[in-house]
Amino acid sequence: MHRCALWSLPFLVLPLTSLADPLPSWNDSASKTAILDFVAAVTDPTSDSYVPEPDRIAVFDNDGTLWSEQPLYFQLAYALDMVRQKAEADPAILTSDALRAAAAGDIAALRETGREGMLEVVSLSHANITPEAFRASVHGWLTTTEHPTTGLTYAEMTYQPMVELLRYLRDEDFSTYIVSGGTLDFMRAIAEEAYGIPPAQVIGSIVNLSYSVEDGVPTLTKQPGLFFVDRTGDKPVGIMNHIGQRPIFAAGNSDADFEMVDWVTAGEGARFGMFIHHTDAERETAYDRGSPIGALDVVLDEAEGRGWVLVDMAKDWSRVWSATP
Amino acid sequence: MHRCALWSLPFLVLPLTSLADPLPSWNDSASKTAILDFVAAVTDPTSDSYVPEPDRIAVFDNDGTLWSEQPLYFQLAYALDMVRQKAEADPAILTSDALRAAAAGDIAALRETGREGMLEVVSLSHANITPEAFRASVHGWLTTTEHPTTGLTYAEMTYQPMVELLRYLRDEDFSTYIVSGGTLDFMRAIAEEAYGIPPAQVIGSIVNLSYSVEDGVPTLTKQPGLFFVDRTGDKPVGIMNHIGQRPIFAAGNSDADFEMVDWVTAGEGARFGMFIHHTDAERETAYDRGSPIGALDVVLDEAEGRGWVLVDMAKDWSRVWSATP
Repeated sequence: MHRCALWSLPFLVLPLTSLADPLPSWNDSASKTAILDFVAAVTDPTSDSYVPEPDRIAVFDNDGTLWSEQPLYFQLAYALDMVRQKAEADPAILTSDALRAAAAGDIAALRETGREGMLEVVSLSHANITPEAFRASVHGWLTTTEHPTTGLTYAEMTYQPMVELLRYLRDEDFSTYIVSGGTLDFMRAIAEEAYGIPPAQVIGSIVNLSYSVEDGVPTLTKQPGLFFVDRTGDKPVGIMNHIGQRPIFAAGNSDADFEMVDWVTAGEGARFGMFIHHTDAERETAYDRGSPIGALDVVLDEAEGRGWVLVDMAKDWSRVWSATP
Repeated sequence: MHRCALWSLPFLVLPLTSLADPLPSWNDSASKTAILDFVAAVTDPTSDSYVPEPDRIAVFDNDGTLWSEQPLYFQLAYALDMVRQKAEADPAILTSDALRAAAAGDIAALRETGREGMLEVVSLSHANITPEAFRASVHGWLTTTEHPTTGLTYAEMTYQPMVELLRYLRDEDFSTYIVSGGTLDFMRAIAEEAYGIPPAQVIGSIVNLSYSVEDGVPTLTKQPGLFFVDRTGDKPVGIMNHIGQRPIFAAGNSDADFEMVDWVTAGEGARFGMFIHHTDAERETAYDRGSPIGALDVVLDEAEGRGWVLVDMAKDWSRVWSATP
């Protein structure tokens, strides 16, 4: 974050950014230029758009923005795997249509059980465990389970251009936060390693958590049910509760991020709103309007009028995955 | 946080801490020695107790720990004032015993209305306002309203020794957080100015917050009711949800902080637990067991056995208030 020692002496600072491209996996494009111009403006003390460091806050959706969400949210894939594993050990746990569909990996049948069914699956796979043990389980799963179509592990399917963008913003003294529908512990299992984002800068949905003393030991235990669901209009709410101020930079990829980006870019002064448009059928999946996952309808209609940047994944990114092929 | 430029070159670093006392308002005492020894141990890379910077997290209760809570929690004093002011403009708002007691400043009568009555008072004084406008109101009130007994403004009644401790910990690359029963926006109105703690490092009770679009403008509005109450066993829950890891240093002043300090000090490795014991009838108020505000019963019984430091305010502090008399 800080360039320390000799590098901070003005007369010794080399114009590093002109020597090395901070976003090497971004093709020269309007998107890349817009990012670089925005960062240059808000970090230039002589600019009218200058923003002091404590206010340089950037928020990123996770699924479909920082890593893939196809053909299934990674967290849902994890949950189904956990229900299947638990059912193999004890079939009697499959007490509902939702749980039977989950154990069978039958997404269509699971979808029919609605929000209630999804909550059952989350509760069975995410509860009665400490946050630490849950994160260890998730970390192991993400780093060893092979994704069904790419042959990469799930952890390798972060977007390299976005990892570069996060690092670039932090190098320019931004604080970078995840603001996602995924739950806190699921993301915290990998966020530091994958994105350089520490646990305290992860905002997400919140699984119920309880405090108790077990054999004299103060213990936190994840419980069934959700305390907070972090999507659409609740993203600004979650940000305000957690960060306490309005960010100046927001990136998403679906209509569930509309309110967050709208609120961020409606603030005074220089603001940046960005959506990843999944146009890349070859390297990932092409989807937008009407997609059951990551639908992009309203945003496609509104982005231009609101001055938001639509990143064309197929054209703007020279490389997709963080993993080297 | 970072000593930059030339100071970070090892051969130029002066042993600053030995030249200046980092805690000048602390008398030489077992409490002060315990703090200095703990910080020296966890920041010494050659020590078995060494803790890397990202794990140097310190949490502080606010009321009675960082500022006074007598004769009334400052936030409750603010709420009563707001109800009184609103009732002066429109007496019809006093629709219940709780609100009438609040407007009259009758604490005993208000207490009789219980949790429900208190919630009415909070809702009337904290809702239907944006977080920004609410903070401006609180900031104005704290910095201009005179406390009933000291003649200082409320904002001047932070504890100078604790402000020094916060600064000292940050100088030693700790992250410092407030973890309080007070609500987020109330504390964020003053936390940066009073304690050097930015909004994102304030954890507290959470007033309901809603997102809506008003005349095309995305808007957050505080609503009646509380989403989260941050006390006793919910303090560890709030910390885990917000910070995502267990701190190594915790300070409180009442039994409502017991679980937080117990959980923090039950972790592996070097840990520090501390309670402010309000022994100073002359400069503040002497209270502990059975006090209606800030009761210290269980902690007084348990502190020694658990190795927690009990700070004797009368003996250990050479100065109480941050405001110069």
